[in-house]
Amino acid sequence: MMTTNVSQGTATINVLKQRTCWEWVEQAIANLDTILLDHSHCERKAAGVALNLMFRYPSNALLVRKLTAIAREELEHFEQVNQWLEKRGIPLGYLSSPPYGAKLKTQIRHQESDRLLDSLLISGLIEARSHERLGLLAKYCPHLELAKFYRSLMASEARHYGIYWLLADTYFDSKVVSKRREELAVFESETLATLHLEPRIHS
Amino acid sequence: MMTTNVSQGTATINVLKQRTCWEWVEQAIANLDTILLDHSHCERKAAGVALNLMFRYPSNALLVRKLTAIAREELEHFEQVNQWLEKRGIPLGYLSSPPYGAKLKTQIRHQESDRLLDSLLISGLIEARSHERLGLLAKYCPHLELAKFYRSLMASEARHYGIYWLLADTYFDSKVVSKRREELAVFESETLATLHLEPRIHS
Repeated sequence: MMTTNVSQGTATINVLKQRTCWEWVEQAIANLDTILLDHSHCERKAAGVALNLMFRYPSNALLVRKLTAIAREELEHFEQVNQWLEKRGIPLGYLSSPPYGAKLKTQIRHQESDRLLDSLLISGLIEARSHERLGLLAKYCPHLELAKFYRSLMASEARHYGIYWLLADTYFDSKVVSKRREELAVFESETLATLHLEPRIHS
Repeated sequence: MMTTNVSQGTATINVLKQRTCWEWVEQAIANLDTILLDHSHCERKAAGVALNLMFRYPSNALLVRKLTAIAREELEHFEQVNQWLEKRGIPLGYLSSPPYGAKLKTQIRHQESDRLLDSLLISGLIEARSHERLGLLAKYCPHLELAKFYRSLMASEARHYGIYWLLADTYFDSKVVSKRREELAVFESETLATLHLEPRIHS
């Protein structure tokens, strides 16, 4: 599949190795209801990821404090997206996940403290990609109210990936962080090189 | 161990089959720092339980809406308890769980929709017990500021178990709910009949 990169007007997210292709934007705009439902699942999953990390590292006070704030905010967004679903008459329900998350998870090394570093960096990359894609929806979504809603979420998504980088830099040497983030960012972009057939935030 | 029931002044929580014994109050008051740390873990776990149920039943709109609100509130309490820990110079850290939660979990039947009913009722019972015990701390804690804090949490704990009953009554026949809640409430009180040696919210 030809993948034309979208370069117009989206805030450059330096960490991402490849920008999202135009085909994703077309796919998303043509399937706004499915994208909204998937977005709801993404917000709930993001809260779950933050909570799981808090469970796994209960003694890391900074991590616990920062991830509690993220989890609370993701749940707030989850509620907001669900209000949009209700407004558009879309029932809450199961939706298959695209391969993106599971593929990224394969890159998490099992040994500590590698596991913590990889978990933080992958969460940060997912937040960065979400930020980029919500930005594209904010720009190209033909439904103006919905576009405005996407725009309103962008600032916190950006803050979230900033927090994941901050935590990585707090617990690890900055050279180790940079090197590993680079490797994972390459992998992250590769997983999105082929557009997933079903419309999703991370298709 | 002799277990004198505490009857003075705590709001009667009808669903609980046995009131908390006085020995628990003594144990808790003598170990306020450990109780605070355990309380922090309880709030985080309660948020996790709500989130897990939302993951397992993503199509039950009322459940998802109500449990999102509970999870958000538990995370807010988690933050508040952690501020108390910080104020008292107690580092966040691992603490072994009392047998209470694991024992209650054994009563959850595996087949749906029994599993949903049991999960809701057990969560409700735990919230009811937490409400009763925070009430005892509010009444007997010698540290007045801390006692005030416990009092401030009681209303939401009461609201939370009300929500779990409401959800059970929404998805199930009220006679089935009453019968099963009765059985589980007996089991819940039996698990607390012997005081756990280590001071915990649910020792």
